[in-house]
Amino acid sequence: MPYVNIRITREGATSEQKAALIKGVTQLLVDILGKNPATTVVTIDEVDTDNWGVGGETITARRKRGA
Amino acid sequence: MPYVNIRITREGATSEQKAALIKGVTQLLVDILGKNPATTVVTIDEVDTDNWGVGGETITARRKRGA
Amino acid sequence: MPYVNIRITREGATSEQKAALIKGVTQLLVDILGKNPATTVVTIDEVDTDNWGVGGETITARRKRGA
Amino acid sequence: MPYVNIRITREGATSEQKAALIKGVTQLLVDILGKNPATTVVTIDEVDTDNWGVGGETITARRKRGA
Amino acid sequence: MPYVNIRITREGATSEQKAALIKGVTQLLVDILGKNPATTVVTIDEVDTDNWGVGGETITARRKRGA
Amino acid sequence: MPYVNIRITREGATSEQKAALIKGVTQLLVDILGKNPATTVVTIDEVDTDNWGVGGETITARRKRGA
Repeated sequence: MPYVNIRITREGATSEQKAALIKGVTQLLVDILGKNPATTVVTIDEVDTDNWGVGGETITARRKRGA
Repeated sequence: MPYVNIRITREGATSEQKAALIKGVTQLLVDILGKNPATTVVTIDEVDTDNWGVGGETITARRKRGA
Repeated sequence: MPYVNIRITREGATSEQKAALIKGVTQLLVDILGKNPATTVVTIDEVDTDNWGVGGETITARRKRGA
Repeated sequence: MPYVNIRITREGATSEQKAALIKGVTQLLVDILGKNPATTVVTIDEVDTDNWGVGGETITARRKRGA
Repeated sequence: MPYVNIRITREGATSEQKAALIKGVTQLLVDILGKNPATTVVTIDEVDTDNWGVGGETITARRKRGA
Repeated sequence: MPYVNIRITREGATSEQKAALIKGVTQLLVDILGKNPATTVVTIDEVDTDNWGVGGETITARRKRGA
């Protein structure tokens, strides 16, 4: 019955990539902890680069200065 | 002072349904735990079906195959 | 497939109260949005009063001054 | 390595305000807890007023009646 | 810069299992989305079975009746 | 009505430090976004170093090898 929330910046992840991520994380929980995949929930939040900060500045600002 | 976060798939919940959910959850916290409704916060996140997985596959894929 | 997270201060909620909360919230999602209860997950986080703030002060401080 | 999530209603916060918030929160973690800013992550979620409730009603409804 | 939160019931996951989960999820984000592992954060929350519900009842209750 | 969640490793933050963090974050939301402090909620989650990973390894492991 695990619940997993994955947060990434919204920068063009495709449906295929997101499906692969959901499949992969679910399988890890089965393999490592013996969890039941049928009740394992994974959600992905894509967050605008203006709304994500690291090192005290937004990802938008970091991208602009090439960081 | 409770904080409740409800996550559902983005599949057409109406403003009325969301208002009813907020009202109902707040009332439960009053009735069961004696919480003050004035400081009870409820947020609802609607998540795209591509970004929600269960059983290792996305809700989009499940809907397509009629699951 | 909803996921609900309820956060309250750790101040003695009983197992019975928590079970009632889980039951009630699940039923609301069934009644209002037609969700399947079998795949509705509810988690409750109990947070120490030192770790919860409102109005810029901790709940511990508010309780001490009778707020 | 702290992770901070800030949730506000979606009511026109500007990129500059969000950048200031990210900068300020990161600095607080440096000043108060001695955290390394380079690995401090801050995300901001802007939530529709239909999806945010307090006192058992949505912010949309509160705004309408001038609360 | 992804942030991943994994929530499981507190039922004896070992330090080794949790380390394997952190390693595996980080690698998935590298392999599927090309993320930088150095800034990928994974947290695991272990939630008491009294505080986790599915199907409207707690995991504690489900375990007792053999579900 | 903002809600802020701060997640740090459980490594001895004092009650005074946590109170300062709550006060400071609340003030930032007042100063930058004009939010009402009375309805601003801040919670702090302290996460065991075994349950927090960065760069694919736990903080426990990083501390041991002096990272």
